[in-house]
Amino acid sequence: MAGEAKQGIIDGRAISKQIEAELTEEIASMKADDGMVPGLATILVGQDPASQLYVRLKHKACDRVGIYAEDQKLDASITQKELLDRIKNLNTRADIHGILLQLPLPQHLDAKKAMQAIDPAKDVDGFHPYNVGNLMIGDEGFVPCTPAGIIRALEYYDVDIEGKDVVIVGHSNVVGKPMAAMLLNRNATVAVCHVYTKDLKSYTAGADILVVAAGVKHLIKEDMVKKGAVVFDAGITEEEGKIYGDVDFENVVNKASLITPVPGGVGPMTIATLLTHVTFAAKKIE
Amino acid sequence: MAGEAKQGIIDGRAISKQIEAELTEEIASMKADDGMVPGLATILVGQDPASQLYVRLKHKACDRVGIYAEDQKLDASITQKELLDRIKNLNTRADIHGILLQLPLPQHLDAKKAMQAIDPAKDVDGFHPYNVGNLMIGDEGFVPCTPAGIIRALEYYDVDIEGKDVVIVGHSNVVGKPMAAMLLNRNATVAVCHVYTKDLKSYTAGADILVVAAGVKHLIKEDMVKKGAVVFDAGITEEEGKIYGDVDFENVVNKASLITPVPGGVGPMTIATLLTHVTFAAKKIE
Repeated sequence: MAGEAKQGIIDGRAISKQIEAELTEEIASMKADDGMVPGLATILVGQDPASQLYVRLKHKACDRVGIYAEDQKLDASITQKELLDRIKNLNTRADIHGILLQLPLPQHLDAKKAMQAIDPAKDVDGFHPYNVGNLMIGDEGFVPCTPAGIIRALEYYDVDIEGKDVVIVGHSNVVGKPMAAMLLNRNATVAVCHVYTKDLKSYTAGADILVVAAGVKHLIKEDMVKKGAVVFDAGITEEEGKIYGDVDFENVVNKASLITPVPGGVGPMTIATLLTHVTFAAKKIE
Repeated sequence: MAGEAKQGIIDGRAISKQIEAELTEEIASMKADDGMVPGLATILVGQDPASQLYVRLKHKACDRVGIYAEDQKLDASITQKELLDRIKNLNTRADIHGILLQLPLPQHLDAKKAMQAIDPAKDVDGFHPYNVGNLMIGDEGFVPCTPAGIIRALEYYDVDIEGKDVVIVGHSNVVGKPMAAMLLNRNATVAVCHVYTKDLKSYTAGADILVVAAGVKHLIKEDMVKKGAVVFDAGITEEEGKIYGDVDFENVVNKASLITPVPGGVGPMTIATLLTHVTFAAKKIE
């Protein structure tokens, strides 16, 4: 489908619309055949505005494809035990196939313990150590949605991965590290850079595929990118109501063969991947 | 301790002797204080000579430091169920704190299922997905022994890791991938190369720290190594009774500031790390 690459810009919204269309059909037939409706429960603790926005976007997406979405809003003062009990209850519910704990949590709560309380079979975010470990040993089940969405986009545009020189900027558990594992599983040569890297440009300038998730506005300039590179920008910085990515899109777009804009690139693909995971979790029960 | 670097050769036997001396003392006092003796059970299926040798070396090491080691030899014709039952039995035994399933297994057995049957709290090899996942998210518990031994050696020689350019050759689940995770957890810039890498030298020649685990005799030549690099060779190739590493030691030794020989480098450190894990597993029970 490389031919479809509109002026080299990866249209995350178009890809996610296609995924959503497929899921809508699939979910409709699941409902018709077995009366099965995939169910997602989101847990939002406190009032963080960004978290509220992300949860709202996920619920809207569920509504579009026919996934039942339950919004569990918990007070910021909830105790660890109350949070764990809530998760354990969701683990036992037959109508809930996916559980999403929106991070960050208030300081007094142990996010890791909470994450580990989620049944790995309902861990649609792919953050449970059991799922992370399976990803790392090459047995991909539920994997983090952002890197999974990027792999989906590479497939959509028929970009070869095996043997390619890939550079990832950022080594978070949400994007950088799982992205590295997924690309190594596909036999790319993978370099992971981050804030401690001595000479970032010496890495990025050689990358056939560049994935940036540093959270630093316009960190990647045109001279840091190889001609013809495929560039994914998972960064989001908000300034005075405007959203910026980690890549200086206006200039890098001239050099890249494919590049994601911000917004409208990686974000929508991430949410579409979440919907795919919830549907998959429900199908496994069928 | 960089001063101790004998002509730049990392003496894996000396490091492991020091670790064993510390463990012998620790285990003696555990025994004196609580009558606690750390216990390791090894499971060897079939007659593979290399596997037999590795198991024998591990048992000898256990004997040296005072760890009770039980050698469970199973016939190559054992069924998957029999193997799993054996593992489950070891999971329940209070005198066994570590379980080591020697790989490879005969074709008809599912190594992954067997590995996952081991109680993660007794997974001293660090191969259970739960432990692998915790390693990847930066919460290192039981981690694979070869990369853990290499980290130990870097600490022994006071080699800084943070911000260093590290190249790993080989992306196996036993060495390459867990090594990458451990070095990323310590904020090194990490590139992972392998058989699909287009231009291996372009990576290795820039490495401050080079870890090679490809299993290809003398893959790494002098011109592929940066002056002053720290080089770990986890490769073992046997030819006519002689052991060769993945690094052309005779020539690379002149360029490296520190380098492990084969044999006598990474191997002994790996076994010493296993002993540390078994002792740690027993202490957690205390």
